[in-house]
Amino acid sequence: MRPSSRPANLGIDPARLMGRIEALGRIGALPGGGVSRLALSEADRQGRDCVAGWMRGLGLAVTVDRIGNVFGLRAGAEAGPPVVIGSHIDTVATGGLYDGALGVLAGLEVVNVLNDAAIRTRRPLAVAFFTNEEGARFAPDMMGSGVLSGHLGLAEALAAVGIDGATVGDELARIGYAGDAPVGAIAAHCYLELHIEQGPVLDAGGIAIGAVTGVQGICWTEYRFQGQTNHAGTTPMAMRHDAGYVAARVAVEARRLAGEIGGVQVATVGRLAVAPGLVNVVPGEALLTADLRNTDAATLAAADERLRAFAAQAAAAEGVGFEARPLARFAPVAFDPELVALVEETARGLGHSVRRMPSGAGHDAQMFAPHCPAAMIFVPSRGGISHNVTEHTDPAQLSAGAEVLLRVALEKAGVV
Amino acid sequence: MRPSSRPANLGIDPARLMGRIEALGRIGALPGGGVSRLALSEADRQGRDCVAGWMRGLGLAVTVDRIGNVFGLRAGAEAGPPVVIGSHIDTVATGGLYDGALGVLAGLEVVNVLNDAAIRTRRPLAVAFFTNEEGARFAPDMMGSGVLSGHLGLAEALAAVGIDGATVGDELARIGYAGDAPVGAIAAHCYLELHIEQGPVLDAGGIAIGAVTGVQGICWTEYRFQGQTNHAGTTPMAMRHDAGYVAARVAVEARRLAGEIGGVQVATVGRLAVAPGLVNVVPGEALLTADLRNTDAATLAAADERLRAFAAQAAAAEGVGFEARPLARFAPVAFDPELVALVEETARGLGHSVRRMPSGAGHDAQMFAPHCPAAMIFVPSRGGISHNVTEHTDPAQLSAGAEVLLRVALEKAGVV
Repeated sequence: MRPSSRPANLGIDPARLMGRIEALGRIGALPGGGVSRLALSEADRQGRDCVAGWMRGLGLAVTVDRIGNVFGLRAGAEAGPPVVIGSHIDTVATGGLYDGALGVLAGLEVVNVLNDAAIRTRRPLAVAFFTNEEGARFAPDMMGSGVLSGHLGLAEALAAVGIDGATVGDELARIGYAGDAPVGAIAAHCYLELHIEQGPVLDAGGIAIGAVTGVQGICWTEYRFQGQTNHAGTTPMAMRHDAGYVAARVAVEARRLAGEIGGVQVATVGRLAVAPGLVNVVPGEALLTADLRNTDAATLAAADERLRAFAAQAAAAEGVGFEARPLARFAPVAFDPELVALVEETARGLGHSVRRMPSGAGHDAQMFAPHCPAAMIFVPSRGGISHNVTEHTDPAQLSAGAEVLLRVALEKAGVV
Repeated sequence: MRPSSRPANLGIDPARLMGRIEALGRIGALPGGGVSRLALSEADRQGRDCVAGWMRGLGLAVTVDRIGNVFGLRAGAEAGPPVVIGSHIDTVATGGLYDGALGVLAGLEVVNVLNDAAIRTRRPLAVAFFTNEEGARFAPDMMGSGVLSGHLGLAEALAAVGIDGATVGDELARIGYAGDAPVGAIAAHCYLELHIEQGPVLDAGGIAIGAVTGVQGICWTEYRFQGQTNHAGTTPMAMRHDAGYVAARVAVEARRLAGEIGGVQVATVGRLAVAPGLVNVVPGEALLTADLRNTDAATLAAADERLRAFAAQAAAAEGVGFEARPLARFAPVAFDPELVALVEETARGLGHSVRRMPSGAGHDAQMFAPHCPAAMIFVPSRGGISHNVTEHTDPAQLSAGAEVLLRVALEKAGVV
């Protein structure tokens, strides 16, 4: 799609964008730095009120749906599904200022620019933030966009019990965001999400913009091994059934397998535990989790099966029982190729270095992708750090991403 | 040493031996089976009173030393250091009837046989039980025999604080076993200890008696790895500093190294833990313990150094920091070759299958070995199980061990 003519001197206001980011960052601020706005908490409510207030101040028509997603609609010359710019404002318990907030507030900055320039778009434009993207207080993550898209049932989501025992339904009502707008179907012309990378690739490469091609599929499996607890001194090596040894072999194999598969394949053993855990006792039980990800579903499934087969063989060789339990399975999501190309060309046209890359983390965009063209724009995360109070992206980098977002959104919405 | 002439029809009384084992086993009995007589607990006190009562009933002169070791002395025709038969009566929290108790009560059975046959030995004979052999409530293990032999200081032992906060000194006084007899030097002609194997070798081989050649040296090392916590999805494999991966490599290497060294070398990773321990987070920290044992001190030291060198190289390759902390070092102990040969010949002479083997577990005998000829006699542990309420050795197997003990003790004490 060739970028059409549009006002050449349009530009975002970096200070205004940072001003809103910092203002929202004061809501739920932690003493040492960083933010805690767990989904549907008091801080989340205050954050919602703040952003909804900005929406109204920008003349957007604000609606709240039944899972608490908030939309601010800017009418276009024509009726029809809007270009949606979205992300989330809830955070993890020790979060930063940018994860989610950037995409929402850059959307408000886009609206602000259009208002200031008195630009009327052909299609409507909406800025949205979705309930409980993080999944830190209530599982699963991407709950609001999941319910909106029909991926997750509303009743099931409302019944979800949080880490503190409260339910989503009760908390939504308590904070006054149990809205009326229907859920279960996406009505969008396309979806755009600006987000920090949460990884080290752009930062390490000195690259300004990531044109995100899709989201990695995820495969989480828990392995449990049952061997025989024994005395570390009196049990000959040949007579052992060491569950911990087998788990260690599987952990080493996960790394080797990722290397052999190559490409974007990642493999992580995040949990590894043995019991009874005494220095002089051969471990009779062990547990590990394997987190495998790839953008190709078949490759991912094959990796999972190969690791499982290895675990079975290693367990058998040691006379140890094992069971593999799937913890989570998310299919890879590919973003719309034309939209991805538009992001890339737009970044280049603005003079920014840009790189195509998959997202290793889940985002609201993946809930939209099956229903309408969707794409994401990444900006660097310093040191790749995320979900951490020290999460940081330079103001200039944030603005560069917002500039790309503005132009892509305008291209998709069309100017009258 | 050629077995000299002695009364040919002397034999232990299996039912009497079992009777005392079962009676002591009722003190501290656990509801589902097994025993708990933690050192210096009420149950230990009752056990001590019971055994000391039996000692007195058998005409032994009972003395208690300053660390609570209890000796029952049977005078011989000559003065001089006694032949000591010993073990312990304290247990782990979920112990069995035989670990320690067998050696003490078989000693009483030996005395009983000599009394019944009105046999006067040349050298005195002593039966002893030593305080806190297990180290379950107070560290270190083999405390009583350690203090007696001068290996461990009395003041340090008395000051030891247990898992429940009590001190050894206070508890000894509380249960009435803070004795007057001096510690710090062994005065024994030789030391004999009958004990269950606590391992699977005799049982698996269908062998009745173990002629124990010595105790394996022990090398415990704790390894800590410091990497970088990272997002499992967004962090490329080449940019990781996965402390858990390095720990897993070291655990696998420990097994490989033991196999390469062969012989009696054992290697156990009993503790293995990673942090933060979340499925989707690359572990930034990890810890493991390595328990290495061998009867040869040089081989053991080399094994420890090779594993450490491997850990250093594996950590460096992953850009992970590491530190290795020695937790415990016990030199191998060789038992007196003549005494070991006497045990072996005696067993054979009685028609029992016998095998020379090292002990993979620590015993009071190792505290005596540097100071006088010492040896141990093993009997099988069913399934190799020990430190477990299901610990079991058949009565016939227990009696076979006691028979060997009787004859070896008589040979060493001499008959008048």
